[in-house]
Amino acid sequence: MKKRYLLAPGPTPVPETVALEMAQPMLHHRTPQFSAIFAEAAEDAKYLFQTQQDVLILASTGTGGMEGCITNLFSPGDKVLVVNGGKFGERWGKISEAYGLKVVEIKVEWGTAVDPKAVEALLEKEKDIRGILVQASETSTTAAHPIEALSRLTRDRDDLLLVVDAITGLGVFNLPMDEWGIDALITGSQKALELPPGLALVGLSKKAMKFNEKSTCPRFYFDFKKEKKNLADKTSAYTPAVSLIIGLRAVLKSIKEEGLENVFARHNRLARATRAATQAMGLKMVAPDCPADSATGVFVPEGVDGGKLVKMIRDEFGVTLAGGQDQWKGKVLRIAHLGYVDTFDVVIAISALEMALKKMGAKVEFGRGVAAAQEVLMEGY
Amino acid sequence: MKKRYLLAPGPTPVPETVALEMAQPMLHHRTPQFSAIFAEAAEDAKYLFQTQQDVLILASTGTGGMEGCITNLFSPGDKVLVVNGGKFGERWGKISEAYGLKVVEIKVEWGTAVDPKAVEALLEKEKDIRGILVQASETSTTAAHPIEALSRLTRDRDDLLLVVDAITGLGVFNLPMDEWGIDALITGSQKALELPPGLALVGLSKKAMKFNEKSTCPRFYFDFKKEKKNLADKTSAYTPAVSLIIGLRAVLKSIKEEGLENVFARHNRLARATRAATQAMGLKMVAPDCPADSATGVFVPEGVDGGKLVKMIRDEFGVTLAGGQDQWKGKVLRIAHLGYVDTFDVVIAISALEMALKKMGAKVEFGRGVAAAQEVLMEGY
Repeated sequence: MKKRYLLAPGPTPVPETVALEMAQPMLHHRTPQFSAIFAEAAEDAKYLFQTQQDVLILASTGTGGMEGCITNLFSPGDKVLVVNGGKFGERWGKISEAYGLKVVEIKVEWGTAVDPKAVEALLEKEKDIRGILVQASETSTTAAHPIEALSRLTRDRDDLLLVVDAITGLGVFNLPMDEWGIDALITGSQKALELPPGLALVGLSKKAMKFNEKSTCPRFYFDFKKEKKNLADKTSAYTPAVSLIIGLRAVLKSIKEEGLENVFARHNRLARATRAATQAMGLKMVAPDCPADSATGVFVPEGVDGGKLVKMIRDEFGVTLAGGQDQWKGKVLRIAHLGYVDTFDVVIAISALEMALKKMGAKVEFGRGVAAAQEVLMEGY
Repeated sequence: MKKRYLLAPGPTPVPETVALEMAQPMLHHRTPQFSAIFAEAAEDAKYLFQTQQDVLILASTGTGGMEGCITNLFSPGDKVLVVNGGKFGERWGKISEAYGLKVVEIKVEWGTAVDPKAVEALLEKEKDIRGILVQASETSTTAAHPIEALSRLTRDRDDLLLVVDAITGLGVFNLPMDEWGIDALITGSQKALELPPGLALVGLSKKAMKFNEKSTCPRFYFDFKKEKKNLADKTSAYTPAVSLIIGLRAVLKSIKEEGLENVFARHNRLARATRAATQAMGLKMVAPDCPADSATGVFVPEGVDGGKLVKMIRDEFGVTLAGGQDQWKGKVLRIAHLGYVDTFDVVIAISALEMALKKMGAKVEFGRGVAAAQEVLMEGY
């Protein structure tokens, strides 16, 4: 018997009660019974997004939501500024190019955040930029970009959108869509929303919907105007992912009950505990100046193969963490603390890391990381 | 207490064991454990599709699979022949136009099948048609189109594809992809596959993949070449819908155990029983000459409001059937018999229909439809 624990930055653990609720008998999607569920989920999504605007619910993963923002808000030939500080920033560029947009990229060193001044300077220089495409939390590097600062550059301009991939950010830290004036805010079901993958949620400002009126990119499956119209009728344009939406309603209800501020505080406490623990263990953070509260990335110690380490923690200790991607493959370990996670998930991750490092021959003092985590975790009690 | 029964043409009932299997603890998608599940599902999908080629598994509803076929197999300006015999045939046209294809439409009267000779004549006339887009079973009219006959027009031509939306056809009646030479065959998870909505499956012939090499439509989320490459690594391009794929593996395993021929025979028996029952009740079939085995459509008796009938059967008797769409709204009733359905589901549907019609004041002899169904259903025993 090996008990398993999932602490990777998505998919995240699904609460048992929600998993079982999703296992209830299938409902037909064009019934008053399901419409009520759909409407409740869509309404509570506004609380999560901190918006009065509609939040669209799409049957796709987060990448589908990203593509939808490109094809529904822009036109071929439009110039967009892509903040590329990791794999997902890079993806913004690829999607934009696939649909014929002109991409101006700000390359950001992995593990660092974009400098809003650099963005401001570029906007000054290239007046025809129509959108800033950025991640709230760049999952591949565990770095958070300064969304509030970027929103100050866009919110008073009616010819420029701020489009934020918050797939590992929303529901983890504060991203008040309306207050900051974020124009498109995207998340996926399998992160802070504690659900299986298969849903993308997209919040859209009034300004974004004005861009939508003019957008000429070809689109069909991801059609924001059509979805918005259907949302008013408590449904979606195509068959909704019924079971996931039943789960979405349940999770959003529990997030509302916990309260967004408490949700953010919990994630922050777990994040700081993980950072304190890895620091106490002598591990260097990969994004020390701008760590997102969703996951903590550290370089593995010299002489340790990060790929083997992740594999050992998973296959021998039963704990699934994540390794590094692309240029960080084999060098980095990412410990997630987002979604349905609490105090002892951090204890599990850190103690497993200590034990696996010891087994791999690294110098480890048992309990040192755990104790440092406990010091922070105690704040919650 | 009101016990509920779902007999609409999708979503269809999910077997309880599969629903619970999907409720198991979340798995990370980049692990050997999940890769094995994904690979097994992809392999067994070939059995369902009766093909040696790859079957792609996409995180979207069936419409996403349809869009993927347009954007991955054709180019703007390409001419396609759309068989439009209902809402879903119409959808082929809309998607094609959204991506700049030239659409030549054969309008087919609702409830009838396309005449292969008409298709042949049109192909003779317009030599630059590059694809035939058709439904195996047009869900809105319960009519089946003659896919085998159409395949004879395409399979020996290397400049023409047969693209079949089999969302309510695959796993219901025989559609041997390789034997007939179907080039793209699409299904969704919430029909014969007995799963919640959220997955599209697409089988692609070698000829289709040659078309893919030349296709210039913009695309990103639905990218067949990228998916094919990832499939070889036992994964998908973006985060797979983990829980649905766990369900897919389970359902495909049970379909394989039952055997496709038996699956088809079961659907055919249930379909014939439903037809016999409605006929005995004096209800006129909407697609008498080409009924699909997935659902039976009948006109409601004169003087009965079909919308009210569907509502009464659902809200008072607890049985969810489907009404008519568009031009058939309020006039038609559709009783589905696809997926996780068996003998007594037909008995439920027919007896509920008898009782609801009686309650609405129609002339009904109790048990007449049920008895006619039983006569056919007994064949299975």
